[in-house]
Amino acid sequence: MNNDQLVRVTRYFRTLNRLKTIGLERVFAHNLADAAGVSAATVRKDFSQLEIHGQKRGGYDLLELLAALGELLGKGDSQNCIIIGCGRIGRALMHYSGFEQDGIKVVAGFDSDPLVYSDSSHPVPVYPLSRIDEVVQARDVKVGILTVPEQAAGDSYERLLASGVTGVLNFTPVTIKAQVQKDGRMPVVHNINIALELEQIFYELKFPKGSE
Amino acid sequence: MNNDQLVRVTRYFRTLNRLKTIGLERVFAHNLADAAGVSAATVRKDFSQLEIHGQKRGGYDLLELLAALGELLGKGDSQNCIIIGCGRIGRALMHYSGFEQDGIKVVAGFDSDPLVYSDSSHPVPVYPLSRIDEVVQARDVKVGILTVPEQAAGDSYERLLASGVTGVLNFTPVTIKAQVQKDGRMPVVHNINIALELEQIFYELKFPKGSE
Repeated sequence: MNNDQLVRVTRYFRTLNRLKTIGLERVFAHNLADAAGVSAATVRKDFSQLEIHGQKRGGYDLLELLAALGELLGKGDSQNCIIIGCGRIGRALMHYSGFEQDGIKVVAGFDSDPLVYSDSSHPVPVYPLSRIDEVVQARDVKVGILTVPEQAAGDSYERLLASGVTGVLNFTPVTIKAQVQKDGRMPVVHNINIALELEQIFYELKFPKGSE
Repeated sequence: MNNDQLVRVTRYFRTLNRLKTIGLERVFAHNLADAAGVSAATVRKDFSQLEIHGQKRGGYDLLELLAALGELLGKGDSQNCIIIGCGRIGRALMHYSGFEQDGIKVVAGFDSDPLVYSDSSHPVPVYPLSRIDEVVQARDVKVGILTVPEQAAGDSYERLLASGVTGVLNFTPVTIKAQVQKDGRMPVVHNINIALELEQIFYELKFPKGSE
């Protein structure tokens, strides 16, 4: 799957999970198209390319489709992640319930501040950074969300990789470039730089594209 | 400027602001290159393309360079923004101090819940949604950050555009596609879908690029 198709398949998968909770048993390309903001022809083309076939009577069996897309998205595996840095943004993400419908689970948070990790009011356990290796192994953690202050970004990233995590969603303003590790692993890093996004919006408002 | 160059120029600008607070008066391409993670040759090429010239003695006058880059980035104008939806993520962004060094100012928050907007402990004033037009005009607000629940995304977006805001940073899981408005304005919308980013990281870990 290319990136655009992956985005669409993720949307179909999410929509199907919702339709399942509503009690639907059969869905049509049009249902998924509406929810994903694409045409029914695009849905059918995606499924045809992915070798997913409909029913003779028309439409798709919801559970079969969900299973097929889940397999394509690697849903059988652990989708456990941890949050490094439990400041305001880290804590907001801990409480965010939007991941669950994708099967993504935040299993723990980590912080260097004893006041933070000794506070038991968090929705998931929060540990001192020294326990990261232990938790990553015990919970088969694949991805770390980096929400530490800028000056701690580099160290925390190295700490994550050393623990065995190879997927990183980086919210710090430091852009992290993934490099092949000594053991041959290639980390997958996505950077979300909120200040830079705002900066680009202000810039595009001032100098609209195509007006240069 | 293309997007890559814009990202670099934003980094140079941010670095210069920091060097200024340290008391530097002259900077060299190498200084900016180190901080921005590019080569000195790239810095010089950027400045040459942007018609920014160094001093005869070598290096650049820090204040002159800051002014020139600021003008290119549209820094003379208002960079005021507001936050729509003061839940955990909205409140975390209200407290985030990383915008200030770019001259971006969060001037107010908006929420539909009286318990939220009557609470005076926020770092910026929080108003009911009904006062959005008034605040946008009074503070010359250009950009709105959308951190409302998914089901309120569409309405809040329309409300923002109606108030005169044309830049939107959308944190809701609903992807917003900018469309030309009746008055001819073209909104600038950036979507940050945190769940989707995580989803993509899990997918790339399972099916590494180039292994298909």
